[in-house]
Amino acid sequence: MKELKIFAPATIANVSCGFDILGLCLDTIGDEMVIRKSNNKGVKIAKIDGQDVPLEAEKNVAGVAILALLQQLNADVGFEIEIYKKIKPGSGIGSSAASSAGAVFAVNKLLGDPFSTLELVGLAMQGEALASGTAHADNVAPALYGGCTMVTSYDPLHVVKIPAPEALYASVLHPQIEVKTADSRSVLKEYVPLKSLVTQMGNFGGLISGLYTQDYNLISRSLHDEIIEPYRSILIPAFDKVKERCLQEGALGSGISGSGPSIFALSEGEETAKKVAKGMAEVYKETQIDFDVHRSKINPIGVKILDIIE
Amino acid sequence: MKELKIFAPATIANVSCGFDILGLCLDTIGDEMVIRKSNNKGVKIAKIDGQDVPLEAEKNVAGVAILALLQQLNADVGFEIEIYKKIKPGSGIGSSAASSAGAVFAVNKLLGDPFSTLELVGLAMQGEALASGTAHADNVAPALYGGCTMVTSYDPLHVVKIPAPEALYASVLHPQIEVKTADSRSVLKEYVPLKSLVTQMGNFGGLISGLYTQDYNLISRSLHDEIIEPYRSILIPAFDKVKERCLQEGALGSGISGSGPSIFALSEGEETAKKVAKGMAEVYKETQIDFDVHRSKINPIGVKILDIIE
Repeated sequence: MKELKIFAPATIANVSCGFDILGLCLDTIGDEMVIRKSNNKGVKIAKIDGQDVPLEAEKNVAGVAILALLQQLNADVGFEIEIYKKIKPGSGIGSSAASSAGAVFAVNKLLGDPFSTLELVGLAMQGEALASGTAHADNVAPALYGGCTMVTSYDPLHVVKIPAPEALYASVLHPQIEVKTADSRSVLKEYVPLKSLVTQMGNFGGLISGLYTQDYNLISRSLHDEIIEPYRSILIPAFDKVKERCLQEGALGSGISGSGPSIFALSEGEETAKKVAKGMAEVYKETQIDFDVHRSKINPIGVKILDIIE
Repeated sequence: MKELKIFAPATIANVSCGFDILGLCLDTIGDEMVIRKSNNKGVKIAKIDGQDVPLEAEKNVAGVAILALLQQLNADVGFEIEIYKKIKPGSGIGSSAASSAGAVFAVNKLLGDPFSTLELVGLAMQGEALASGTAHADNVAPALYGGCTMVTSYDPLHVVKIPAPEALYASVLHPQIEVKTADSRSVLKEYVPLKSLVTQMGNFGGLISGLYTQDYNLISRSLHDEIIEPYRSILIPAFDKVKERCLQEGALGSGISGSGPSIFALSEGEETAKKVAKGMAEVYKETQIDFDVHRSKINPIGVKILDIIE
């Protein structure tokens, strides 16, 4: 094959009680990318549509991730990419991760799958390092594996995929404010009370168990975060009101997507997810802040191939 | 039925990365108890064999747990119990939990099952409160549910049972020293670095996932504890040597059972568990400390009925 068109999904990291570990892959929110083999070595970003992100390969997360891949292969090949960016940068639903995960996924396919999915996570993390200064995997892992993922360790990198329950839907509100990653990190406490750790681990264990056994009640009772959310939510206007409304509308739980500012809610079934998304929008209409609302089932496979040109 | 003879299993709490949450039920280590209906209201402890524990019902963990049960029922009944204590108190493998779990299990059966297993956990916790001053559930939950349990919350009490993998075996070394629960609590730090929390949660998530998917490699790579073990292990002579030996003999992992002093190791298959138990014994023979070594598969059901007298 010469060229691939792909869908690169948005993702929800942390998922309340899974700080820096858990991630969920979304299905109807994401970028599109076209990646084609080129006669010129290296990476050329031919087109970026929709958002103002850098065209130079070395400054673009997709470019950096592909360059990391090519360096490992020591391959005499080149690629041209077009990025149709639909996820807004800084939204907290893995905008940079979608680009770098999509890029390495497509290049790997075009080269005949020399890398495993875990290795692709490691390469896409190079893009994350460019975007945020930290090579974290909690968005690229779900983008590449699909479903729900746990980054159980970084040294060595290890990812566990948990199949997401069939009827699990996400609603996402993206308030169009800027929350700098540095700010969202700096509000966190460096030390956590041992008691809070036990509560958090109880919820985390319950959530994982609920996902494995498709127990929506257990998922619901476990979607709490008493370590990060109390601090980060202060940076998100009307967070408490949105969350309260989500629960009123029947959501299983609600929290901050990644480091924010997006707010997510999980629901059993599409109908509830619709009501929740509508409720989120109604709360935010009362603020003076622009916003987007998304709704999606959990994407079981991650990056998707939309078209193949042989 | 008038009388029951039961097996009340020993248990391993914490299981490295699951502090105050996880527990495993053992199969061939435990007490025996005989519980019979009596014409006299209340609880009479007719016999205690094997260990020097209090005969007065109000001072005995089994007695206290049954009294708590009877108080809830407001029932005009009485019971007589005999305890054949094989688990040494203070060993760290749930000696008091076995007695209180066994007691409420048997009385509940003799009364026609008025309480759910979760309710029995709550009642057995009264015995734990007497034994250690804290009504914890991480030993009584696995003793009553069997397999592997997570106490995901206390308020309200909630327990999740994870079926234990078929070939999972435990080896346990009990050094006959006294480690006071108060001491094993006091060495812990009140605050934990956020970074350590993320590492611990990664291991905890990996362990739960490994148990659900019977992935022994994942169980093995997850059996680490960087929050509690570094402090508590100081109270256990030759801990590092025993642990190292367990891993050399092929154990999946090794750590402190409950708050110690017992050291446990988990293995895939009975043969490895045997070698590990032998290795534990060899290390401890070089100390001047008396010890017991146990070996057991994971008990899938918890308390067992050995005999029924109608």
